[in-house]
Amino acid sequence: MNVLIVLAHPESQSLNAHLANFAAETLREGGADVECSDLYAMNFDPVEGPQHFSNRINSERFNAQAEQRHAFETHTLPDDIQGEIEKLQRADAVIFQFPLWWFGMPAILKGWIDRVFVYGLYRSNQRFNQGVFAGKKALISVTYGVPEQSVLHDGREGDADLILWPIHFRLYYMGFSVLPPLKVYGIRGGLQGEEADVLCAYVEDIKDEYRERLLAIDRTPALLFNKVDDFDIEGKLKPLAPVYSPFIRHRKHLDLA
Amino acid sequence: MNVLIVLAHPESQSLNAHLANFAAETLREGGADVECSDLYAMNFDPVEGPQHFSNRINSERFNAQAEQRHAFETHTLPDDIQGEIEKLQRADAVIFQFPLWWFGMPAILKGWIDRVFVYGLYRSNQRFNQGVFAGKKALISVTYGVPEQSVLHDGREGDADLILWPIHFRLYYMGFSVLPPLKVYGIRGGLQGEEADVLCAYVEDIKDEYRERLLAIDRTPALLFNKVDDFDIEGKLKPLAPVYSPFIRHRKHLDLA
Repeated sequence: MNVLIVLAHPESQSLNAHLANFAAETLREGGADVECSDLYAMNFDPVEGPQHFSNRINSERFNAQAEQRHAFETHTLPDDIQGEIEKLQRADAVIFQFPLWWFGMPAILKGWIDRVFVYGLYRSNQRFNQGVFAGKKALISVTYGVPEQSVLHDGREGDADLILWPIHFRLYYMGFSVLPPLKVYGIRGGLQGEEADVLCAYVEDIKDEYRERLLAIDRTPALLFNKVDDFDIEGKLKPLAPVYSPFIRHRKHLDLA
Repeated sequence: MNVLIVLAHPESQSLNAHLANFAAETLREGGADVECSDLYAMNFDPVEGPQHFSNRINSERFNAQAEQRHAFETHTLPDDIQGEIEKLQRADAVIFQFPLWWFGMPAILKGWIDRVFVYGLYRSNQRFNQGVFAGKKALISVTYGVPEQSVLHDGREGDADLILWPIHFRLYYMGFSVLPPLKVYGIRGGLQGEEADVLCAYVEDIKDEYRERLLAIDRTPALLFNKVDDFDIEGKLKPLAPVYSPFIRHRKHLDLA
């Protein structure tokens, strides 16, 4: 198995960096080949724009999708993007390790998606179970600054299912089988003394859970999303199709309340 | 009224740029003072990290929240961030104009949030209706590459309510009254000839709707979110509190189906 770990954290001593290193070690011990994209260490530029395209199809007016497609087809993608695409193509599984910043990916990782998932690599008729990365697994491993109860369905910091839905959906769109996320709660940086000891004990617990998740990556059931054939030609869900949106879980909670 | 328009699009001839200019003109004609943050034109750096902090509270280990708070308190925030905060403080309303890229904000705008909503400007006990920007309005004006039916509750591209929820929630967290979004559908760049004529007619229709929205910004009811007092001390929704999450709307659709 070939695994790509994409890390988005500015501090090499952070819990996020430790979790990425731990995942790499654990997977290698399990026999996998592991590549890493440490976006901060790579000084990755997350801003999509005309400066990245040397061979423009339209030099008057910049359209990201049009230039991405042209660059892909003419083999003139920037070197950093070409490298990331080749890592994705080699990977059987991709792990995204990041802190939840403002209820989303840190900008450096959002921009990695904006720039690396280039139009042309996929086309508009290649999505979901027919996406270009179909057969590959994706797992997000996300750290929170708040405790678990705050991100449950009735939590003050927003239901994690709702908050993570657009992140998971963008991976599923490309064809990934999206595994249930690893969520690490209540981590704040810069802890000292006793707090740091508590943190270390907590991290050891997390590592036990994470090791199990990592070594089962091949056989973990993916989250459910609607397939291409669940939609009609106009892009509307067919009447008899199942419905896989976070609201099913919420409806259950509401009925129970 | 003082309005800040934050624009996130790499092309100055794009529909997004036109909509931002149109909003500025319309609001000025209506008597407002308007400031703009054209993030691409400003070459805004969306990557939060140690390079932005000249007066570190912890030079060994970088923690974004700790350094933001320290820089805020010691008046050593980077000039670009200080400038954006002052624009926000002057504003009665903020308009975010951007294309939906991969079911979220373009990275340059996500990173504007990461870097400008600094910890210290707000504290953990200042959120929602008690947030530092309480009393200010926020409106997102978002362009899609797909037609409207694709982003309805049963649409293939993901329910817009679910996709936009984390974006709205991060604004509401800071105290903004979040207005219903302006959604512009089915725009693709680079159209030529007849297609461009159709596009121009469509844009004129959009402008009529947008003009009404802009001139009513003061009296438009905001989206509903739970207030601070709806949650108990542990951050869980109180049993009798109303529930304002996108799933209410979805439940309605499911019951109707």
